[in-house]
Amino acid sequence: MAGNVRPVDVEIIAFDVFGTLVDWHSSITAALAEVGARTGIDADWPAVASAWRARYRPTLGRVVAGDLPFQSLDDLHRMMLDEIAADGPLQALGGADADELVRAWHRLTPWPDTVPGLTKLRERHILTPLSNGGMGLLTRLARAAGLPFDCILSAELAGTYKPDPRVYRLVPRYLDVPPDRVLMVACHPDDLEAAAREGLRTGYIPRPREWGPDGTAPPPPDHVDVAADDLLSLAALI
Amino acid sequence: MAGNVRPVDVEIIAFDVFGTLVDWHSSITAALAEVGARTGIDADWPAVASAWRARYRPTLGRVVAGDLPFQSLDDLHRMMLDEIAADGPLQALGGADADELVRAWHRLTPWPDTVPGLTKLRERHILTPLSNGGMGLLTRLARAAGLPFDCILSAELAGTYKPDPRVYRLVPRYLDVPPDRVLMVACHPDDLEAAAREGLRTGYIPRPREWGPDGTAPPPPDHVDVAADDLLSLAALI
Repeated sequence: MAGNVRPVDVEIIAFDVFGTLVDWHSSITAALAEVGARTGIDADWPAVASAWRARYRPTLGRVVAGDLPFQSLDDLHRMMLDEIAADGPLQALGGADADELVRAWHRLTPWPDTVPGLTKLRERHILTPLSNGGMGLLTRLARAAGLPFDCILSAELAGTYKPDPRVYRLVPRYLDVPPDRVLMVACHPDDLEAAAREGLRTGYIPRPREWGPDGTAPPPPDHVDVAADDLLSLAALI
Repeated sequence: MAGNVRPVDVEIIAFDVFGTLVDWHSSITAALAEVGARTGIDADWPAVASAWRARYRPTLGRVVAGDLPFQSLDDLHRMMLDEIAADGPLQALGGADADELVRAWHRLTPWPDTVPGLTKLRERHILTPLSNGGMGLLTRLARAAGLPFDCILSAELAGTYKPDPRVYRLVPRYLDVPPDRVLMVACHPDDLEAAAREGLRTGYIPRPREWGPDGTAPPPPDHVDVAADDLLSLAALI
C-alpha cells in the first residue's frame, strides 16, 4: 500500500498518538488485568479496554460540540471508566484503582516500528505529538515510551479536542511555519481529513491491531499525501 | 558556594534558558561578526551583543505592564535590533540580515556543563524550559544545542513574559503537579524570586560569563532552596 501520492517537503511532523504511535489496547488490557488480579475482579479485560475506548469519541465529541465543558483527558477517562463500571464486575473497583487505571494511559507501549521510525524521521524533521492527551500525559508517555519528540503539543493548549480545527492550527501557530510545512501522521482517516481542511499535509499509517489482534485497518482517506505501512517505510518515502 | 539550604524533592525541573543554559553573548557576538564580515560593517560586536540584550528587560517589561501588546520574542528581538541600528555602523544592515540575526537566537551554544548536567538531572526528573523564548524558538534551540528536555513550555503559552506570575503557573498547570513539586533553575535572582512567589522551589546557578568574559554573577537570592556552581553540582545535590 505504501506510496507517495504527491511529494512531501515539510519541516514539522505532527503525530497522532493513541493507536498511531502506541498500542493502547494491549497496554490498557494489561493494566486492567493487573488491577483485576489484585482486587479479585474477573472480567473479559480486552473487551473492557475496548468498551472504555469506545466511549472516547462520543465523549470528546460532546466537548467539541460544547455539551460538556473542556476538561482534561484524565478527567474524561475517569468519567468514561465510571460509566462502564456502573454495572457488571467493575462495580467493585475502588477510587484509587480507578485513578491508577486512568494513569495507565500515561504509560502505553509503542508499536515495534515507532521508536526506530521516529528516530529516523527526526534526523531531518522536527517531531511533535498532536494528540488529545494532555500536556502532562503526553510528556510522561513520551518519556516512558522513549518517543524522541522535539516538543509536546496537546489539544489541551487549544482548550478543545480533535477534530476541532483549532487543534490543528496549534502546529503552525506555535512552530512558526505555514500549515503546508506540517505533515500530520495518523492511522485515523477522520483525523487526517480534519488536518487537511486546515492546510496541513497528511500521512496515513495503518494500525490494524489498534483494537486488538482481530482488527482491520480502515482504508486511507482520499487525497492523502503519503501512505506507508509503518513509520520506517514513511521515513524512506519523505 | 554550593549547598542545599533545604531539602528539594521535586518531580519537575523548569529552566531559564538565555544565560542559564546557553551562552547568548558569545553566540550572538559571533553571529553579528559573521554578518558584519559579509556586509562590510565593522563594529565592537561584543558591545553590540550586550546593547541588544540590554534592551530585553525593559522591552519585555513594557509587554508585562501592558504598554506593548504581546508579540513573539522574535518580533521583539527585531524591534530591539532596529532600535540599536537606528544610528551608528549598523544602519547599513539590510532586512534579510536583521532577520538572520533574529534567528541567531534560535541557535545558541550551551555552557560546557549544560548538556551533561541536564542529562544527569533527567534520570530522575522531568525537564522543561520555562523561558521567554517562543515555542518555536525553544524547540529549535533545544534541538540545535542537544538539550534533552521532556517538553517545551514557553511564556508564549501564557501570552505574557516573565516575571509575570502567569508564566510560572504554566508548569503546575500543564504538568499536573502542585507548585512545590517544581524546581525553577536560573542564574537571575529576579526570575527565582518571581517563581518562589508562585510557590515553586528555586535553584540558583551563577553564570558570571553571561555578559562576556569580564562579568560577575549576582549573589543568589534570599530564601533560595538550593544553590550550586553548575548543573552537574546541582544534580549531585538533589
